[in-house]
Amino acid sequence: MVPMIDAGIIGGSGYTGGELLRLLSNHPGVKVVAVTSRKLGGTDVSDKHAHLRGLYDLKFEDISPEEVAGRCDIVFTAVPHGSAMKLVPELLSGGAKVIDLSADYRLATGVFEKVYGLAHTDPREVVYGIPELHPEAASQDLIANPGCYPTGATLAAAPLVDAGVVERVVFDSKSGISGAGEEPSQVSHYPNMAENIQPYKLTSHRHKAEIVQELSRLGNIKVSFTPHVIPSVRGILTTAHMFVKRRLGAEEVRDIYREFYRGKPFIRLISGIPALPSVRGSNFCDIGFEIEKDSDRIVVISAIDNLVKGASGQAIQNMNLMSGLDERTGLWMPGVAP
Amino acid sequence: MVPMIDAGIIGGSGYTGGELLRLLSNHPGVKVVAVTSRKLGGTDVSDKHAHLRGLYDLKFEDISPEEVAGRCDIVFTAVPHGSAMKLVPELLSGGAKVIDLSADYRLATGVFEKVYGLAHTDPREVVYGIPELHPEAASQDLIANPGCYPTGATLAAAPLVDAGVVERVVFDSKSGISGAGEEPSQVSHYPNMAENIQPYKLTSHRHKAEIVQELSRLGNIKVSFTPHVIPSVRGILTTAHMFVKRRLGAEEVRDIYREFYRGKPFIRLISGIPALPSVRGSNFCDIGFEIEKDSDRIVVISAIDNLVKGASGQAIQNMNLMSGLDERTGLWMPGVAP
Amino acid sequence: MVPMIDAGIIGGSGYTGGELLRLLSNHPGVKVVAVTSRKLGGTDVSDKHAHLRGLYDLKFEDISPEEVAGRCDIVFTAVPHGSAMKLVPELLSGGAKVIDLSADYRLATGVFEKVYGLAHTDPREVVYGIPELHPEAASQDLIANPGCYPTGATLAAAPLVDAGVVERVVFDSKSGISGAGEEPSQVSHYPNMAENIQPYKLTSHRHKAEIVQELSRLGNIKVSFTPHVIPSVRGILTTAHMFVKRRLGAEEVRDIYREFYRGKPFIRLISGIPALPSVRGSNFCDIGFEIEKDSDRIVVISAIDNLVKGASGQAIQNMNLMSGLDERTGLWMPGVAP
Amino acid sequence: MVPMIDAGIIGGSGYTGGELLRLLSNHPGVKVVAVTSRKLGGTDVSDKHAHLRGLYDLKFEDISPEEVAGRCDIVFTAVPHGSAMKLVPELLSGGAKVIDLSADYRLATGVFEKVYGLAHTDPREVVYGIPELHPEAASQDLIANPGCYPTGATLAAAPLVDAGVVERVVFDSKSGISGAGEEPSQVSHYPNMAENIQPYKLTSHRHKAEIVQELSRLGNIKVSFTPHVIPSVRGILTTAHMFVKRRLGAEEVRDIYREFYRGKPFIRLISGIPALPSVRGSNFCDIGFEIEKDSDRIVVISAIDNLVKGASGQAIQNMNLMSGLDERTGLWMPGVAP
Repeated sequence: MVPMIDAGIIGGSGYTGGELLRLLSNHPGVKVVAVTSRKLGGTDVSDKHAHLRGLYDLKFEDISPEEVAGRCDIVFTAVPHGSAMKLVPELLSGGAKVIDLSADYRLATGVFEKVYGLAHTDPREVVYGIPELHPEAASQDLIANPGCYPTGATLAAAPLVDAGVVERVVFDSKSGISGAGEEPSQVSHYPNMAENIQPYKLTSHRHKAEIVQELSRLGNIKVSFTPHVIPSVRGILTTAHMFVKRRLGAEEVRDIYREFYRGKPFIRLISGIPALPSVRGSNFCDIGFEIEKDSDRIVVISAIDNLVKGASGQAIQNMNLMSGLDERTGLWMPGVAP
Repeated sequence: MVPMIDAGIIGGSGYTGGELLRLLSNHPGVKVVAVTSRKLGGTDVSDKHAHLRGLYDLKFEDISPEEVAGRCDIVFTAVPHGSAMKLVPELLSGGAKVIDLSADYRLATGVFEKVYGLAHTDPREVVYGIPELHPEAASQDLIANPGCYPTGATLAAAPLVDAGVVERVVFDSKSGISGAGEEPSQVSHYPNMAENIQPYKLTSHRHKAEIVQELSRLGNIKVSFTPHVIPSVRGILTTAHMFVKRRLGAEEVRDIYREFYRGKPFIRLISGIPALPSVRGSNFCDIGFEIEKDSDRIVVISAIDNLVKGASGQAIQNMNLMSGLDERTGLWMPGVAP
Repeated sequence: MVPMIDAGIIGGSGYTGGELLRLLSNHPGVKVVAVTSRKLGGTDVSDKHAHLRGLYDLKFEDISPEEVAGRCDIVFTAVPHGSAMKLVPELLSGGAKVIDLSADYRLATGVFEKVYGLAHTDPREVVYGIPELHPEAASQDLIANPGCYPTGATLAAAPLVDAGVVERVVFDSKSGISGAGEEPSQVSHYPNMAENIQPYKLTSHRHKAEIVQELSRLGNIKVSFTPHVIPSVRGILTTAHMFVKRRLGAEEVRDIYREFYRGKPFIRLISGIPALPSVRGSNFCDIGFEIEKDSDRIVVISAIDNLVKGASGQAIQNMNLMSGLDERTGLWMPGVAP
Repeated sequence: MVPMIDAGIIGGSGYTGGELLRLLSNHPGVKVVAVTSRKLGGTDVSDKHAHLRGLYDLKFEDISPEEVAGRCDIVFTAVPHGSAMKLVPELLSGGAKVIDLSADYRLATGVFEKVYGLAHTDPREVVYGIPELHPEAASQDLIANPGCYPTGATLAAAPLVDAGVVERVVFDSKSGISGAGEEPSQVSHYPNMAENIQPYKLTSHRHKAEIVQELSRLGNIKVSFTPHVIPSVRGILTTAHMFVKRRLGAEEVRDIYREFYRGKPFIRLISGIPALPSVRGSNFCDIGFEIEKDSDRIVVISAIDNLVKGASGQAIQNMNLMSGLDERTGLWMPGVAP
């Protein structure tokens, strides 16, 4: 592997930071040279991420963006929304490429400010990093890495929307609880989550804005979105109830998806129904569908790992493209099933 | 408790049979005098249902419907569809009242024959036993006890449909795996079910016909239905995406539900979002909703225990009504939470 | 039911408080007239315990022990250790009988002070309320309700220890996570608990002192105890590896258990291996065993619901006895299986 | 990577076969050239193992051992016990090296025949492939790949037994249900396994013979073993209650383990308590311990992934050694946590 990338992670103590480290430990072209954490500065990365013990000899550092940029070719910012916009300008001016896993650069500035109730301090146009929809990611210095729900939902619906046949989509999404982060809460409390499925923000989840933005680029449709957390650590299964303007046959739908995702290795079109174990721990997005008889409804199902294709894996896929590598590098692993 | 009912169960070895026995053990007005099983005739009920040990001194018997009817005031038929229609006429002519937990009498005969691909050998009009919608259940000799999905879906949507404001409903339902019965299969195999959520029969589940039948009585709407199994033993959570003809305020919606379910003790309208643990093991149906801002969508969530309100508990509720008892008798227990 | 008991709960917002309320809602001889909570005073009980909605019309109150004692015949104290000893004297002097669910009165004072590192402000000799071992509970005004692990462990081992044949017992106990309470923590965080089993306090859990105290009354043995939490909300399964001084046959062991637990309705001796679903939500303790061939080891398994027989159910069992009721009153329900 | 190994799998449709394929897809020095299945001959490997879709372009074949041996440098036999002994001689005489994942060659012939109640048709002395204990694996043509429970138990106990200080060990082992294979059964039925922990073969599991064999080589001790299945797909957590002849300090114990496992990259000695998520999907064995105060007991905990270090990963580790590769090749990946 020719190009050796020096990579950094700002905010490495959470789940997406840990997942970046897990995946990069298997990447032949990357060396992680900096992982920051304000709270854990000075402690071993594996004190926090016990699964990484033996794989890294690395400590969390509490250092400035400038210092990180000075050491790194590329930097992942795995920080809360509102924080990234404060770091990214310095990282870029320090000469590093940046992949931002927060929400700060995903939406048009005006939309962002409305949805997040926050003034943007670094407004700019940034490519939304679903590489299957945005090949121009390859030439960027800054990528807005997409949200987990929008990745699963957009990939499920994009081909049919792009084909101009869709009128309305109702996304009923089901996410593993790791999406809520590593901080314990009543929602993630085992007795509340086990043997349950918990809908939340029934009509007002912020991720809807990303889905609308991306699908609107492809067609004029009505979008509804309701998220649920399920008793699973990882994974997002999206049930897209798609209402179409004209009846389509199964072969036609299959062709639309096949054509749209031609040459996209991480999209697997399957003939049955996707299942989370098949993508667990991997960067794949599995997609299947069924057409309702005598009806205007097509049900499309997508399955991703929220921490991989829905976050850190997609970030590395973007990094690969931005670095001139095959997008599969270090990510070409099957799901951990069963 | 004055009236002592002698009750029988035909097909007592499965989950709904076991659940009838569990619930009836707490019923002050019922004595179970016969439980049949072809395979387990002669063995102790608690050899199969270990949780019932000590509660019953009863053996499975392999006896005829006539004999069961001779002993019982009321008989529950917990057998596969296609079997009940062969037993019910004999039970009725033997003088017993019957609550059929199979699908045989739930649908208009023509619809049944189409949906189940089966000629009906005992066509008749039978009351569909959701007591909240069919108070006439009280005067019947035979009740068709509803399917689990239709109970959760219909109760969630009925008030708004009845109010004439609904155009389309998309039911995205999530069921505990006990709904698939006690026979092991690939779907119920722990490594396949854990850390997963499995959609199935995306557009063609038979229960849709029941939902359509019941909601069509109340209004003219389009119905979509997609079921999923979740890693939970019990429970059905229904996400009803309801699309309305005109905008409604929260207070108006609340009033519609309150009015519709006035005097129905097992319906609990709650201000937040229902959760399965609150109804686990109980006969309650918890319902909550949220109205999407600037949209024609209202999301209604209902939560039931599939084996209780979705099967055996509702059967006992019907029995109570048919016997002149308060419908709560023996069922007035909270969910087992956490 | 003749005697109507007015009951109170001090500390009703946690799991054991909620479980007392759940079980008492089914008790024909009890009326709950006071439930206290410092934090939740003034709010509806069902705002906290959503499963109880409709069953109680009751608010948490922030009132003094005196006031509780004035209203109640019997009071359950469901408070942390160290707090109960401050309340109990007032409750008793106020004329109420008391069942303390904390650890404060379970151990001999000297042992308590050493194990809990706390000076006891109300030292007295109190009956340890496993009714199967302490029938004298019936005549008491104050009962120390046992810990969850000690209940499962002691009931599993007592008969053989009492028979004088045991030299050493290694208790390897597995508890549902509800035993850790309703406060979210890293241990109860779903991503940490799911797909895991977490041993803790490998050699130093405080409950060991209770087990030693109770078994030492019956025989002179060596006791080891290691607890684990499992991905289950409820239940404690205890694997008791018992090392015996002389070989016993299966019939002899069975007779020892049968004799020891004769007339104890909540102990079910089973021929196979106990399972948690059989006791879920119920007050039963299921016990089974197997004798190792050519060995000095007998493996005894017990299964209880930690919140019922391991806490609130046993407390009600004690209440029944202290009130002259059949110990089964309000508790004679099977487990919620599946 | 210089040496390109052509590998074959006999019996590739089950969990260990699937896991070999998953892990080998990441191995830079191996090409899988044959996967057999009697039932699935002719179908795509990814029809059965959906997670492997896109990673392999390979069909199951129903071919003879001779043909497999002709194509392969090394063959993994992932077949039931009793079947391997019929295949291995042909594979060896065909010139292939063999790693047998069945039980057929793990035990001394006489012990095997007694434990499995089966005459051995190919008795020979074969190295038991825990590479940390058997470095001579490197020079073998045939390796008996160990059982999952014995791997976790033996690795937990070996250092202290080897140090001559142990008198008795009680292994209380907890396994993920994938250890029971991919065939649905009552044990693996979700409603039976969820919210439960199921002990089985309390005193008579066949794996005990392997543990005894391996530990007896190191010292003269008494061994007890009781397995449980837990509601987890993967993982074995072993609680080793070790009773010692003399008191040891924590530093001494730590030194014994450190010395014993020096240079063994897959053994991670940790200061806290091992957890299954840290090893999930990986070949690591994490080990921690605690010494009971004033007692002769030391509790050692080990955590492995039953399908990796407990089966297919260890098989590949053996393959690496037998092929002159670094044992970490293709296996040097962290656990998939959370």
